[in-house]
Amino acid sequence: MFVTLEGMEGSGKSTLLAGLAERFRAEGRSVLCTREPGGSGLGRALRPLLLDSRSRVSAEAELFLFLADRAQHAEEVLRPALEQGQVVLCDRYADSTIVYQGYGRGLDADRLLLLNEMAIRGLWPDRTLILDVPTELGLARARRRNALNGDAVEEGRFEAEALRFHAAVREGFLSWAERNAGRCTVLDAQASPEELLDAAWKALC
Amino acid sequence: MFVTLEGMEGSGKSTLLAGLAERFRAEGRSVLCTREPGGSGLGRALRPLLLDSRSRVSAEAELFLFLADRAQHAEEVLRPALEQGQVVLCDRYADSTIVYQGYGRGLDADRLLLLNEMAIRGLWPDRTLILDVPTELGLARARRRNALNGDAVEEGRFEAEALRFHAAVREGFLSWAERNAGRCTVLDAQASPEELLDAAWKALC
Repeated sequence: MFVTLEGMEGSGKSTLLAGLAERFRAEGRSVLCTREPGGSGLGRALRPLLLDSRSRVSAEAELFLFLADRAQHAEEVLRPALEQGQVVLCDRYADSTIVYQGYGRGLDADRLLLLNEMAIRGLWPDRTLILDVPTELGLARARRRNALNGDAVEEGRFEAEALRFHAAVREGFLSWAERNAGRCTVLDAQASPEELLDAAWKALC
Repeated sequence: MFVTLEGMEGSGKSTLLAGLAERFRAEGRSVLCTREPGGSGLGRALRPLLLDSRSRVSAEAELFLFLADRAQHAEEVLRPALEQGQVVLCDRYADSTIVYQGYGRGLDADRLLLLNEMAIRGLWPDRTLILDVPTELGLARARRRNALNGDAVEEGRFEAEALRFHAAVREGFLSWAERNAGRCTVLDAQASPEELLDAAWKALC
């Protein structure tokens, strides 16, 4: 069983992923927790290039780096684990690229879908949980986290741009979830961690 | 003026590139010599991942890394140099990916063309010089160089595979040159370095 968690930064994906892993393990299942970017050996080399906001990488170069990371992760990590019958829980996957680069940055979503198809070669998740938070709350959480990590916090002109971007990404996730309703479930990430875990578990089982 | 040099490893691209740069400079032109992979800041971080034969990277991941390198190189290095009126001489570019991954490894050449279009956003070379050497000679030169660099030299079963691969790449370059005859000139790389430089210069001027 291949499950991906999607949603804005600060929506609580990591906490939910840990909770789900615990429940699957309590049922005696073997669980692999992984993430993108950075889930493979190649990915660990690429992750700093992708997440360092100071490295100036063009939009196209960034997209291809995410796809390289994903192709290697799918081939080296995800496919073998699924073939061994493990439950695979992955923090972000193809949907993130389509929503952030497509709905967020305005690249063509159908072309992004085609590129992702090339990278994953049919390995779509069985279930995708999309954690939804209102734009301003999500942005505030992301800011708090970035400030704690010592990353730059946008101000002034960037404030409005950041809000617009986060709103576009949120709408993107909701619209993409609708387009993929058979696989995707949207969860209210304002619920308490326990309520969220219960809702997620119910969506999976 | 944007010129790319293409051809098999060991065909003499670096020597020719240096010779052409000298001639352009003798005419008072400002020249930028660059290469792929590894021509940008991002590319220098990626180059070891791409050229280390011991790093096991899937075919798709490798392709996306080459494209990320190319997108960044085009945006950060090539376009600004050309806008400043420099002559840009580049050792390998989009044609290499199409020929090696397409004709060599059997990926769909038209899809590779589309991906490259995304990476370079219209920045095709004005002229492309393709250095042609007979398969066995090219393979022997590549082997000698790899042995000098301490890289593994294929033997036995791999010998025949390497020969088949090199033959497919050579045929690929010739066929791709024909399809892009307005831009590409095939040069006989068995000529002496001086003859090759004269032929290349004639093709450019």
